[in-house]
Amino acid sequence: MELWYTERNIVPGLALSVEVSKTLHSEQTEYQHLAIVETPLCGRMLLLDNIIMTNIKDEFVYHEMISHVALNTHPNPKKVLVIGGGDGGAIREIIKHPSVEKAVLVEIDRRVVETSIEYLPEIACGLKDPKVEVHYKDGIKYVQDHKNEFDIILVDSTDPIGPAVGLFEGDFYKSCHEALKEDGIFVAQTESPYYNEELIPKVQKDIRANYPITKLYLAFIPTYPGGCWSFTMGSKKHDPEAVDFSNWAGYKTRYYNPEIHKAAFVLPNFVRELISK
Amino acid sequence: MELWYTERNIVPGLALSVEVSKTLHSEQTEYQHLAIVETPLCGRMLLLDNIIMTNIKDEFVYHEMISHVALNTHPNPKKVLVIGGGDGGAIREIIKHPSVEKAVLVEIDRRVVETSIEYLPEIACGLKDPKVEVHYKDGIKYVQDHKNEFDIILVDSTDPIGPAVGLFEGDFYKSCHEALKEDGIFVAQTESPYYNEELIPKVQKDIRANYPITKLYLAFIPTYPGGCWSFTMGSKKHDPEAVDFSNWAGYKTRYYNPEIHKAAFVLPNFVRELISK
Repeated sequence: MELWYTERNIVPGLALSVEVSKTLHSEQTEYQHLAIVETPLCGRMLLLDNIIMTNIKDEFVYHEMISHVALNTHPNPKKVLVIGGGDGGAIREIIKHPSVEKAVLVEIDRRVVETSIEYLPEIACGLKDPKVEVHYKDGIKYVQDHKNEFDIILVDSTDPIGPAVGLFEGDFYKSCHEALKEDGIFVAQTESPYYNEELIPKVQKDIRANYPITKLYLAFIPTYPGGCWSFTMGSKKHDPEAVDFSNWAGYKTRYYNPEIHKAAFVLPNFVRELISK
Repeated sequence: MELWYTERNIVPGLALSVEVSKTLHSEQTEYQHLAIVETPLCGRMLLLDNIIMTNIKDEFVYHEMISHVALNTHPNPKKVLVIGGGDGGAIREIIKHPSVEKAVLVEIDRRVVETSIEYLPEIACGLKDPKVEVHYKDGIKYVQDHKNEFDIILVDSTDPIGPAVGLFEGDFYKSCHEALKEDGIFVAQTESPYYNEELIPKVQKDIRANYPITKLYLAFIPTYPGGCWSFTMGSKKHDPEAVDFSNWAGYKTRYYNPEIHKAAFVLPNFVRELISK
């Protein structure tokens, strides 16, 4: 018998299905439904509220691209905050960067972290590093309570439905701005430009209201709807397109490199138009 | 009642579904099954042998990216050949380029052209242009019979199963090389780097055997498996990454621009590794 998982909650009229060999874990947590399935194509896959969050085959793209662009735009990132990101993938990437002294993960749902450690050790492996602090708290509240503290804040959220709605709102972006130091950098995952013609201009406008440098960049993520994913950076001082990589020592990555860092900001005409709305 | 079309023939274990409001056309041609469906998300969609070929929502990406990269790499493209591409989308883009005097379409299946003209006029509109010649022939045979004639050859083929298998083989690349003039440029669609770990290195090697300059580039195509699509260019003389756009007059495009032209050749690490195999 063939079993297929089908995701059809995000883009109306579009569905992505992945064959499943086994359901390894399924529970209703305090915040959402959480499942881990084994798939022949993508290896283990984490689902939250029936939406694909990450999987062993292509997780490197999302996790490298949400973190290394900001880490290499900032000249000396020491303290980095991740809101959400309970699978630990962004944290694993952040601690590769030689200047990072502390990486703080604030995940509302403890069960996402615990389940990822159990079933997705390749992704969650960084969470045990001595530089890493994990808090099970509401990210919105956490940033309100921490002023002028972080060099970088990454919002590794679920989609703007359910528990993550507040992470796409202007008030939250303002609090993040206050939690960043004077040359801090903010990055959020901001969905697909093919299917979010209202969300993306709104988010751009809200982030631009806080940061003199606001730029969107793209990456190829095959298991997100449409495979084209956007991230939006708000930066108080450093321009991601002006980074000088000539003395860059580098570290092991499977997607990110200095040329990709720059090329990710080059946008197709229809995306340029979308963000200038 | 909700109806969904599901494509599950290309990548084992992965399926893409699009809601369908109406089937407008369905027939078995001499070569393949051909259908046109109306979808709420993507507008009209052309299916060949149950695989998505093109659709009104995102066709601009594929058609602009298969054609304008070569057209702007060549300093004066006059005569362009398209193998396959019966929907006419590549032709529509080619004739936007001011130097083009003749665009020849060689499509094996007359019904693809006729059906596209009837149901996809937005895509097929260029086929009636006086600069355009359409031949219903086998592309492999056609290039064998034309030597030293074209500035650019574009292979706008279906996937390497069924009628298009021969369009992914070394002998065909060699014939195309002979059909090109001494500074000619060849481009083929070469599938997804996420799911074709054997095909892509093989195709690279076969194209590289014919051309001193062989380069792969990428574009975001949401309705192809994984959303990340590759094209491979073989060029006898002109380097696509060395194009000087400073005096470029341009023309209307929705994806392509001079910056995208260059950025499309910037590859993630795993793709660099794949093509150096």
